[in-house]
Amino acid sequence: MRSADMIELWRGGRRESLHRGHAVVCDAKGIVESWGKPSQIIFPRSSCKMVQALPLVESGAADAAGLTDRHLALACASHSGARMHVEAVEDWLTTMGMGESDLLCGCHMPRDRPENRRLTCSDESPSQLHNNCSGKHAGFLTLARHLRGPGRQTGDYLAPDHPVQRAVKTAFEEVTGEISPGFGIDGCSAPNWACTLNGLGRAMARFACAGTDRRGLAMRRLTDAMRTHPDLVAGEGRACTMLMRAMGGRVVAKTGAEAVFVAILPDQGLGVALKIADGGTRAAEAAITAILVHLGVLDQAEPVVSRLLSGPIRNWRGIATGELRLSPGFP
Amino acid sequence: MRSADMIELWRGGRRESLHRGHAVVCDAKGIVESWGKPSQIIFPRSSCKMVQALPLVESGAADAAGLTDRHLALACASHSGARMHVEAVEDWLTTMGMGESDLLCGCHMPRDRPENRRLTCSDESPSQLHNNCSGKHAGFLTLARHLRGPGRQTGDYLAPDHPVQRAVKTAFEEVTGEISPGFGIDGCSAPNWACTLNGLGRAMARFACAGTDRRGLAMRRLTDAMRTHPDLVAGEGRACTMLMRAMGGRVVAKTGAEAVFVAILPDQGLGVALKIADGGTRAAEAAITAILVHLGVLDQAEPVVSRLLSGPIRNWRGIATGELRLSPGFP
Repeated sequence: MRSADMIELWRGGRRESLHRGHAVVCDAKGIVESWGKPSQIIFPRSSCKMVQALPLVESGAADAAGLTDRHLALACASHSGARMHVEAVEDWLTTMGMGESDLLCGCHMPRDRPENRRLTCSDESPSQLHNNCSGKHAGFLTLARHLRGPGRQTGDYLAPDHPVQRAVKTAFEEVTGEISPGFGIDGCSAPNWACTLNGLGRAMARFACAGTDRRGLAMRRLTDAMRTHPDLVAGEGRACTMLMRAMGGRVVAKTGAEAVFVAILPDQGLGVALKIADGGTRAAEAAITAILVHLGVLDQAEPVVSRLLSGPIRNWRGIATGELRLSPGFP
Repeated sequence: MRSADMIELWRGGRRESLHRGHAVVCDAKGIVESWGKPSQIIFPRSSCKMVQALPLVESGAADAAGLTDRHLALACASHSGARMHVEAVEDWLTTMGMGESDLLCGCHMPRDRPENRRLTCSDESPSQLHNNCSGKHAGFLTLARHLRGPGRQTGDYLAPDHPVQRAVKTAFEEVTGEISPGFGIDGCSAPNWACTLNGLGRAMARFACAGTDRRGLAMRRLTDAMRTHPDLVAGEGRACTMLMRAMGGRVVAKTGAEAVFVAILPDQGLGVALKIADGGTRAAEAAITAILVHLGVLDQAEPVVSRLLSGPIRNWRGIATGELRLSPGFP
């Protein structure tokens, strides 16, 4: 089984480009629906940040550090580096007696337009707080401190054999139900464990069907943190934020680099995972939108549907020049 | 025959993403080498600007307006909107007694970083001169003025039945050797005629093998203008400019939106055309680089090869996290 045709770009009455990919919808028992190859091995990239945050909650580190839902949303975020994100992560680190220099995520210019403009026009360099993963790294540091004891060095908390990353790997393999075939290094320098697309969908279904055991409560807490704070998980104008807002906080939607997207649907007990084979973000955003409409949790009339999927593509003079279309059979 | 595997992104020892596509190498007689489906119908987008500029030269409009090689390079350009591009197009229009408001390409922020920063930080809006196609449109206006006579209105020079666009269509069909199945509207609002990938490759081979008849001389003049002024055809840090510089002005390389790339190799009498099916620019740039190395006109040791194809992908801390690889059998 190979990848399935999913998202097409049409112009002048003909198909100009085509994105293929893989997607699964899972419930507690397994695959409910799929397109492409569920056994495709992928790197979930940032789409699995809620999995990477499980040890932070389950270990008691989050409670010991007095973390709120806002902190947990940031731990699961690929944020835009807006002032609100930067300041929230900075406050978090300060409370722990740490700072920006303890992070190992590296610096990049923020996506947030006002903050990007502020830095550009003041000749100021971005800090590691601007890195879209700075919340995840603050979570790693919080766990590292908790595991090593107060006052102890956190060490290279990104090393695959560091207790933090070993805990992440264990949680990842448990919720995906698979032994990971290996890891790659992510943009933020953290190890990113590979799994099948099915495994990632299974993990999301487990979040959606979380019980009241220790793991279930941690899953619920992270799910609730994300869907309660869509502005912290991404930012203004970003797909995750717009989708979660449009679904009224009932569903979690989270993107990852190279065109991964997941969703957690607690009311339906469903998890979704998809990967566009070519890594094209526009197609991942369109495909998750289509699946969420297909599953009945996103209203076709919501503006985000037009923006990410069904609306015309307009050029610099506002002329409709093309449109995205769903390939026959998807979803 | 379907698209061929071409460019892969590898991370952590496994393939993370895959770009498929179509490519042809043609000489004066036909296809020399191909991957994927040569009969694939595509929109050449900006890759065919040298074809769209043929009537400007062949009609005598370019000579009547005193256009130099610099003007012709701009007519074939998708420029970065740097000061040098903006001022050159503005001077061109001024010389013709016209101005920015005569353009119909629309406004967008320039890719050129200093100019982008200048506009951003001075709260200045971009003008139509910043549009990457403003040189092509200045060429259209020059031809429109020439065809209608001095002092006459140029009209809606983008309308498909305007003499300018009819001349473009005729030239396009003649050099591709095909009746176009139709057009789409490009980002700059101009009609963009569809053809097969084979047709686009054939057109590039005709430029490469141009004779000394009226058309051949026009082709040679446009080819020479582009390869003599790689900085005008795109801009600093752009693939077309870097590739043409690395090949010492012996070859023309030109990109188009949705991952089209063409090349004209006069010394070899070859034309190249490729389209990445998913529209991914990184793959189009890597694929044309690979083909140019394969054809022996681009030295593997040139820094641009490492930058667009073979070099490691580094994250925000400079760690090599992945790499692009050529799929088996390509090229």
